[in-house]
Amino acid sequence: MAPTTAAAAASSNGGGESDGSSKEWRLTAPTRGGAMAAAGDKMSIRAVRYKISASVDDRGPRPVLPLAHGDPSVFPEFRTAAEAEDAVADALRSGDFNCYPAGVGLPAARRAVADHLSRDLPYKLSSDDIFLTAGGTQAIEVVISILAQPGTNILLPRPGYPNYEARAAFNNLEVRHFDLIPEKGWEIDLNSLESIADKNTTAIVIINPNNPCGNVYTYEHLSKVAEVARKLGILVITDEVYGNLVFGSSPFVPMGCFGHIVPILTIGSLSKRWIVPGWRLGWVAICDPKKTLQETKIATLITNFLNVSTDPATFIQGALPNILKNTKEEFFKRIIDLLTETSDICYRGIKDIKCITCPHKPEGSMFVMVKLNLYLLEGIHDDVDFCCQLAKEESVILCPGSVLGMKNWVRITFAIDSSSLLDGLERIKSFCQRHKKKNPLNYI
Amino acid sequence: MAPTTAAAAASSNGGGESDGSSKEWRLTAPTRGGAMAAAGDKMSIRAVRYKISASVDDRGPRPVLPLAHGDPSVFPEFRTAAEAEDAVADALRSGDFNCYPAGVGLPAARRAVADHLSRDLPYKLSSDDIFLTAGGTQAIEVVISILAQPGTNILLPRPGYPNYEARAAFNNLEVRHFDLIPEKGWEIDLNSLESIADKNTTAIVIINPNNPCGNVYTYEHLSKVAEVARKLGILVITDEVYGNLVFGSSPFVPMGCFGHIVPILTIGSLSKRWIVPGWRLGWVAICDPKKTLQETKIATLITNFLNVSTDPATFIQGALPNILKNTKEEFFKRIIDLLTETSDICYRGIKDIKCITCPHKPEGSMFVMVKLNLYLLEGIHDDVDFCCQLAKEESVILCPGSVLGMKNWVRITFAIDSSSLLDGLERIKSFCQRHKKKNPLNYI
Repeated sequence: MAPTTAAAAASSNGGGESDGSSKEWRLTAPTRGGAMAAAGDKMSIRAVRYKISASVDDRGPRPVLPLAHGDPSVFPEFRTAAEAEDAVADALRSGDFNCYPAGVGLPAARRAVADHLSRDLPYKLSSDDIFLTAGGTQAIEVVISILAQPGTNILLPRPGYPNYEARAAFNNLEVRHFDLIPEKGWEIDLNSLESIADKNTTAIVIINPNNPCGNVYTYEHLSKVAEVARKLGILVITDEVYGNLVFGSSPFVPMGCFGHIVPILTIGSLSKRWIVPGWRLGWVAICDPKKTLQETKIATLITNFLNVSTDPATFIQGALPNILKNTKEEFFKRIIDLLTETSDICYRGIKDIKCITCPHKPEGSMFVMVKLNLYLLEGIHDDVDFCCQLAKEESVILCPGSVLGMKNWVRITFAIDSSSLLDGLERIKSFCQRHKKKNPLNYI
Repeated sequence: MAPTTAAAAASSNGGGESDGSSKEWRLTAPTRGGAMAAAGDKMSIRAVRYKISASVDDRGPRPVLPLAHGDPSVFPEFRTAAEAEDAVADALRSGDFNCYPAGVGLPAARRAVADHLSRDLPYKLSSDDIFLTAGGTQAIEVVISILAQPGTNILLPRPGYPNYEARAAFNNLEVRHFDLIPEKGWEIDLNSLESIADKNTTAIVIINPNNPCGNVYTYEHLSKVAEVARKLGILVITDEVYGNLVFGSSPFVPMGCFGHIVPILTIGSLSKRWIVPGWRLGWVAICDPKKTLQETKIATLITNFLNVSTDPATFIQGALPNILKNTKEEFFKRIIDLLTETSDICYRGIKDIKCITCPHKPEGSMFVMVKLNLYLLEGIHDDVDFCCQLAKEESVILCPGSVLGMKNWVRITFAIDSSSLLDGLERIKSFCQRHKKKNPLNYI
């Protein structure tokens, strides 16, 4: 047998003399690691972004335009609030926050988040309802990990955010998808929920403002979600990392407003509203005014999980009260004005490109979902192929819908400076014109 | 049936009308969450510390002395290096590092760690060998998670560090313990390794400098560990978060020096040497000059895991090259001088207390393990009882050996300002005198 294992390699260097067993290395094709590999490989936005970025011709004359992910922090006009930066610098310089944090977060920081969220709720959250996490990413990890148990399942939106799928896969939690309906402004297909849920369903995840679709759910729609969840006896996990980033007709309504109907776990973060995804500061808030969840010891499960997990940097936690207190309205207004302008540029630009269609003008978050009319395109097999060829020929990076659960759609972010966005849309347009089918009618 | 579940509570508010299944809330006693709860509850140092801290009488006249955990960052003399603080402040103020980091870390930061570690190795590490993590805590999570697979087991030291046990429990990875021998300066019981390992053993974890024992392994002992691991065909995970923090006769020898004998995963961090556990910046380094692990795709597994996990704050990663480059020898020397002095005070103080015994003078890390001579003590049942009563009566917090795998021992940290340490030792002494048995001979 050829020495295909590490032990064999080691033994050829004098290792593995002990007995037969030591000839076989223990790390070949680990099952669980394999699941994680699959999860990471298939579903991580990052992994796919690397793959598409690899298609870019680095010797190309034009700058690469990153229209795939929601992180405008590199653009000067999207620079975070000076007050937020000052708060972090002050906490660092104080030397008071170099220590380990408490597993669930610094008391003052938890209190600050509780007060911050309570302003938009019909009841008050307490510090004990807030659990600080290392960004929304760890908040997803916490929530999925404590809900995952053999035989149970969770309802996730399609299209959705891949980290939920990845974490569920890693924890062997079965995923069942419900559709977001493009023709209805990406509303949740409420009718399908009762048919896909069963007695082993633990929760439903909703994302509002929505990534990747850019829609914002109305109060009425959210109240229906709450009623269906109560009827099914499942809790609602609401991902509001894009909370308050709205610029359309619908205001942002925190799902927590319906906490008296059904218990809610709210995921939030500084990352998007403050444009600091690299600060890794998020939270899970238990919005459950009737204490419906007390019997289930959810707070204890979250606490125990966080006690053996990593934390947000202590001095960033220490800065949180001042970040929330001192950030001026002007900053939030500036960001909303920018996103209003760029989302408008994006929507108009897309309408001007034949082979892609946008079913709904974005009203929130940093994204829009666009359908590829492949029958109008020559030699483009699918969305991933579209993104790879576009990256290669035009140095524009988009996110293929496949990784979000919608094949042959693409996600475009408009959270980028307007000149780059205009440039990007122009490049997509010329790419589509160059690949236009001569005689599309034959293909309809 | 009494409404003991959340659904029952919800249904009494109009929920759960749909069918019988909705009467049962899905979150009652989750198996996996339960495992995590057990893991967190039993094994998290934090959880136990909270429990013991709860015994403290807050109205007591004297300050509480935290001699349980290794975090002296709150004491002025242990303040981190100004160059390190400057590097983080500069990275923050640049605005260049508010963005998402790459899943495995910023290239420049990975390179800096590779160069930093290579200085003490007989070969050069490359950037690709380094994976940045959110502190040593996430490094442990990554390593245990990718190794865990059904039927496999891992060898952990007893006494040891509870987060390994907790992560293994969460990932259903079987743990087998080998002993550290007090009479032999806490050396690993090498003879026992072959008897507890089998063909399903994937790795052995060693901690050097050692937490909780405070010993430092010699070159000779480490080379024997490498030989046994090679013979068994298992890799070595070396936890070197206390790396370079040595002040005895043995110099610090990175396990990576034996990477040509057996593949090694090195866990490291800024937390201890720079006294900034709250910065949450650590790493996993693959020390495998013969590329023995390539077949096992360990690097891919780590990458995929980190692609769906949280990260160290980007600007702290951005500061890493300057932290490693600019921190002056004076700072390291100051910390070593402090620990030399306090470890000496601690050892002498313990020798002066009848009912506790220290088998080995600490030469590294921030801890020493001490045996309780319970037969000399009245009304003290075990180590946890000792710690709780001590906390209550003397406001001194120690870590009971039970959570480290050694019942009726306690871990004391000497990484604290010397006056507090002296005060703490005095309080322990008077506690022991107060609880001394009248006639211990009857109990021998």
